[in-house]
Amino acid sequence: MAGYTTYIDLIKPLIEGKEIISTAMTKEVVRVEAAIEKARAGKSCAIVSSGDPGIYAMAGLVFETCQIKGLTIVPPGSNSKREDAEPMLELEVVPGIPALCAGASLLGAPLTHDFAAISLSDLLTPWELIEKRLEAAADADLVIVLYNPKSKKRNWQLGKAQEIILQHRDASTPVGIVARAMREGQNIEIVTLGNLHKADVDMQTTVFIGSSTSGRYMEFMYTPRGYAKKYQI
Amino acid sequence: MAGYTTYIDLIKPLIEGKEIISTAMTKEVVRVEAAIEKARAGKSCAIVSSGDPGIYAMAGLVFETCQIKGLTIVPPGSNSKREDAEPMLELEVVPGIPALCAGASLLGAPLTHDFAAISLSDLLTPWELIEKRLEAAADADLVIVLYNPKSKKRNWQLGKAQEIILQHRDASTPVGIVARAMREGQNIEIVTLGNLHKADVDMQTTVFIGSSTSGRYMEFMYTPRGYAKKYQI
Repeated sequence: MAGYTTYIDLIKPLIEGKEIISTAMTKEVVRVEAAIEKARAGKSCAIVSSGDPGIYAMAGLVFETCQIKGLTIVPPGSNSKREDAEPMLELEVVPGIPALCAGASLLGAPLTHDFAAISLSDLLTPWELIEKRLEAAADADLVIVLYNPKSKKRNWQLGKAQEIILQHRDASTPVGIVARAMREGQNIEIVTLGNLHKADVDMQTTVFIGSSTSGRYMEFMYTPRGYAKKYQI
Repeated sequence: MAGYTTYIDLIKPLIEGKEIISTAMTKEVVRVEAAIEKARAGKSCAIVSSGDPGIYAMAGLVFETCQIKGLTIVPPGSNSKREDAEPMLELEVVPGIPALCAGASLLGAPLTHDFAAISLSDLLTPWELIEKRLEAAADADLVIVLYNPKSKKRNWQLGKAQEIILQHRDASTPVGIVARAMREGQNIEIVTLGNLHKADVDMQTTVFIGSSTSGRYMEFMYTPRGYAKKYQI
């Protein structure tokens, strides 16, 4: 069992008696390499992420590392044996409920129509590419889900994103802000795009920027798919 | 319990003894209105979708219908009573694992970096807007998840999408095709963008078009986040 310390703590009661490889936030590569070594030694090893492991999480790095090491990996159940080759590693990704679904469900239904998911972290991605993606998504009227909107060190990116999107969308566009969805400290807020810079946002927050058709109703935010217009309800 | 006939059949053993409102695929509005009437009559009523109810599914229509009818809806647990007003309806969206996560997990990890989800159904959305979104997502090098790629009547949209994306991406770009993820008849295939028009695709298929950094390794498809480049593993 390998994971970021915080996530390992969340599931502690479920993994009693298991060998645990727990590393800090930025030690992803170390963690994945250690897990792969365990698997090569013949042990079953699970790497945990919060949300879905394939959305801004560890699954990609596992494949990347396996490819760099030239390991033979197969989907679960592909247990044909080749005598002379290195033993094959079975690799299974178990999907989960991503923050974009958990957060959306708490806001209402902001993602019922087309959307883009964009991370504002420029640690591994050049800021120019992130800007290009924000610009494209804003211009094409996609709902935009922002991951990693802000950290203590990265504090200007969200304001810049707001500025870019405001060039294409009204300041009154609803923006849903969900922190720690379905965990301790959960917080849900709906603001306007014009006031996004005043909202309380950190690394455990997901930001949902409405399209031109997204609206608010009572305490909810949702994006219609167009049934009402079509069927004149 | 209200739902599309096929989905109701999938969960039949779980809902024995419940009153069931089951309607055909295109009768979404009728189904939602019937469910709301049940709730207004004081019954607890669940509307089922496959995957996540907030991603191209029924949650948005429920809010849309409540707003049109001017109903007072509140998040679960908001049970303050107002004597003289219409009784409030508690409305809860329960998130699930969307097809984009289930499908991605079977392919490997195609969504580990920024992506857009776009439906090719032009029944409720003008085709011009869908084209604009495809063009924007392709130009901004987002991984693109296509929902509702093809049906018996809508058979040209996927070819047109392929054409648009090919103007921005190499013909060798990997494309993952997942039909009926984790259900009977599941089928997983990885093709190239250049050959997408030859693939077997229907309404129960989700199509994952790689970005310029997405790659194939063994039987998998994944999009790296950039750790290897950063940490020189």
